[in-house]
Amino acid sequence: MLNSKSLLGIKDLSIAEINLILENSLGFKDVLGRDIKKVPALRGKTVVNLFFEPSTRTRTSFTLAAKRLSADVVNFSVSSSSVVKGETIQDTALTIQALGADLLIIRHASSGVPDYLSRILDISVVNAGDGANEHPTQALLDLFTILQYKKEISGLSIAIIGDIAHSRVAKSNIYGLTKLGADVRVICPPTLLPAKIENLGVEVFHSIEEGLKDVDVVMTLRLQLERQSKGFLPSVKEYFKLYGLTSERLKIAKKDSIVMHPGPMNRGVEIASDVASGPQSVILDQVTNGIAVRMAVLYLLGGAKQ
Amino acid sequence: MLNSKSLLGIKDLSIAEINLILENSLGFKDVLGRDIKKVPALRGKTVVNLFFEPSTRTRTSFTLAAKRLSADVVNFSVSSSSVVKGETIQDTALTIQALGADLLIIRHASSGVPDYLSRILDISVVNAGDGANEHPTQALLDLFTILQYKKEISGLSIAIIGDIAHSRVAKSNIYGLTKLGADVRVICPPTLLPAKIENLGVEVFHSIEEGLKDVDVVMTLRLQLERQSKGFLPSVKEYFKLYGLTSERLKIAKKDSIVMHPGPMNRGVEIASDVASGPQSVILDQVTNGIAVRMAVLYLLGGAKQ
Amino acid sequence: MLNSKSLLGIKDLSIAEINLILENSLGFKDVLGRDIKKVPALRGKTVVNLFFEPSTRTRTSFTLAAKRLSADVVNFSVSSSSVVKGETIQDTALTIQALGADLLIIRHASSGVPDYLSRILDISVVNAGDGANEHPTQALLDLFTILQYKKEISGLSIAIIGDIAHSRVAKSNIYGLTKLGADVRVICPPTLLPAKIENLGVEVFHSIEEGLKDVDVVMTLRLQLERQSKGFLPSVKEYFKLYGLTSERLKIAKKDSIVMHPGPMNRGVEIASDVASGPQSVILDQVTNGIAVRMAVLYLLGGAKQ
Repeated sequence: MLNSKSLLGIKDLSIAEINLILENSLGFKDVLGRDIKKVPALRGKTVVNLFFEPSTRTRTSFTLAAKRLSADVVNFSVSSSSVVKGETIQDTALTIQALGADLLIIRHASSGVPDYLSRILDISVVNAGDGANEHPTQALLDLFTILQYKKEISGLSIAIIGDIAHSRVAKSNIYGLTKLGADVRVICPPTLLPAKIENLGVEVFHSIEEGLKDVDVVMTLRLQLERQSKGFLPSVKEYFKLYGLTSERLKIAKKDSIVMHPGPMNRGVEIASDVASGPQSVILDQVTNGIAVRMAVLYLLGGAKQ
Repeated sequence: MLNSKSLLGIKDLSIAEINLILENSLGFKDVLGRDIKKVPALRGKTVVNLFFEPSTRTRTSFTLAAKRLSADVVNFSVSSSSVVKGETIQDTALTIQALGADLLIIRHASSGVPDYLSRILDISVVNAGDGANEHPTQALLDLFTILQYKKEISGLSIAIIGDIAHSRVAKSNIYGLTKLGADVRVICPPTLLPAKIENLGVEVFHSIEEGLKDVDVVMTLRLQLERQSKGFLPSVKEYFKLYGLTSERLKIAKKDSIVMHPGPMNRGVEIASDVASGPQSVILDQVTNGIAVRMAVLYLLGGAKQ
Repeated sequence: MLNSKSLLGIKDLSIAEINLILENSLGFKDVLGRDIKKVPALRGKTVVNLFFEPSTRTRTSFTLAAKRLSADVVNFSVSSSSVVKGETIQDTALTIQALGADLLIIRHASSGVPDYLSRILDISVVNAGDGANEHPTQALLDLFTILQYKKEISGLSIAIIGDIAHSRVAKSNIYGLTKLGADVRVICPPTLLPAKIENLGVEVFHSIEEGLKDVDVVMTLRLQLERQSKGFLPSVKEYFKLYGLTSERLKIAKKDSIVMHPGPMNRGVEIASDVASGPQSVILDQVTNGIAVRMAVLYLLGGAKQ
């Protein structure tokens, strides 16, 4: 059982809770391999997606996870919704609850919105990304994917490369990986390093060549191209030259290291195309595992409610 | 049984038909309280939403109602549809019927479109709001919600505050409430009063203080903010000062009066925030009851067809 | 059994494959006439719609076909998707496959995209229209509809009127009809005739009066109104005068000829309104048959995979 009715971030999860989710994910991954990829666990339950930032990828992953648990899924479209008409976000959320939703999946550009909604609602809330704060199911699926290739997280050396300052994926992964005992390094330009990064228990590198030395896992982050216009980067070409993961650089990591990316990728920006499609890439495994992990999360929260 | 294959407005419903829908709604509300909130009543049937005005709220309510009856639901998206490509609305409707739809839910900015489509189609049509004409399921859920708090509609004194001239919600409620024997008052600025309002059998007040005296139910209407630019209102602030439902003014109504709003609310415009969230507010009950009432409507029409 | 895992065009289908699809369609049309229009054939399978051109009509037809086979259906919305964020189309397609899709329905403005995706994916791909290349399910539903009214395709005389050069519907129909032994004529202005049309085995007419003489089937094509601005047409009015199917002109065809249109129609442009709604029109049959034919295609491909 999870201690909270909602999944808001990795920061607040205990190691036991993380392991519980990962174990359940393994069971659901099994279901995905069957001919009929469905279980009746959430039949008659309603899952609502409320996405204030566009994300077909994550929304589709949650949608398929919910459908495979036999839940009904509804997308509460923000662009054509009451929100546009001046309704407050709390009224939108209370309306969704009053419509009979059992689980609310929320993505929002502001940190803390999922936490706020969880406090005003009785139903479970799943954070699908809030500002630069957290994206917990991404970190969970990353942990799950690492465990598919490595015996345990503890003792692994893991490098996260990219825009750490603005990345909720990095943040959630740092919480999760350090909790489970990995050594985490971040590799990024000084302008993309968050303040007080040392408090997170990670080692900072500004040189990708130094940072990649002997690591087991290389996590590349999507470069939000709009950062450049804001002055955080000289140019996309320059970024690739300094921080792009090339096959040459990948050789610095361990021979059996794996390469991850949360998607969608900018090939030739943060990652070279041959690395993205190369033998060490587990990027599509991440996508597949995302369904299993989200099934586990919805199952544990949807079951917890009754 | 309903007398018509379609639900186009409250104006044409008999008292017996209204009561039949309300009774069925009570049964479906029961279903919504169960662990598995589904019945197989419309299994294998197809419900199509055709919304020419954006409304996530109403569309989601119909979608969930249909899903809880086990129907398949499809949104016929107007912005990316054939309508944009120059197709007439009758051809769009005939296409939807030919695709195998059993029930068509339609919202349109022009009065009379649902009635027109019902005449050219064999399948059932549900009016989800047509221009300033009617929004029958909203009135039905309002009646149902009043009955949750008051023994009967007959004899109640009910005030509707706001933009009566442009409100299909007000129109449908006036038809329904007067049919069931309530005394209906409308409170609004002279510029927002429709012509020939006296024919509807309501009493008109321009002072909210006078209009609220001793009423059992206070219905606030959403103020379409775009009205202001058209010269119907001095300013939003002025509107709140003259017609906003404050807790001070609510005291003029009966002590056990209830406060309603069809949503989405503009807090601080037509209703004060503390009233919207206060103990007399039944606004979220309206949302919940909307599902039960729409299940009853779809069930009665979908069953009538076979 | 189909020879390929994907349906990319009519050009590559054998006569036996076409007949197999048409026979299965007949069985599914039967299902559509039942009270519960569903079969469990694709239960637990996932169908993903990936439409790069807007088309509510075709997308809804595929969606309903899939739902009637009990599949789960997800629309991968392109406008709010990763594609906008700079992801390549192959990464989008590989992601959809990794998410667990069993069948991908794709529409794209460029010819050859479905073929390309079928080659990089393990799952089945259905071409829902690619540039000016093919739209195979439209041709199949047209063949099926003709067979509803005529004993066999072989020996029929069929006229296709309109913008042949830019029409994937015309192209797929020409492949299908000639394979099954029909005599196909195309009627169009010289500016809208594709190069090397004679290689397709059709007879070309520039006069509609000559071209319609004694035909069994009249297929009108939608005029893409944007062609005019590109100089292919003098004016829409002029087009109707020269090539519009009027009741007067229809008399030139055989007395029992049928009139078809893939929709959405521009009434008064390529077809007169009284012809579109007249007794020889089978346009709404085409819509209904589209569901049955798409059920057959999804069934044959989805079953082939296991």
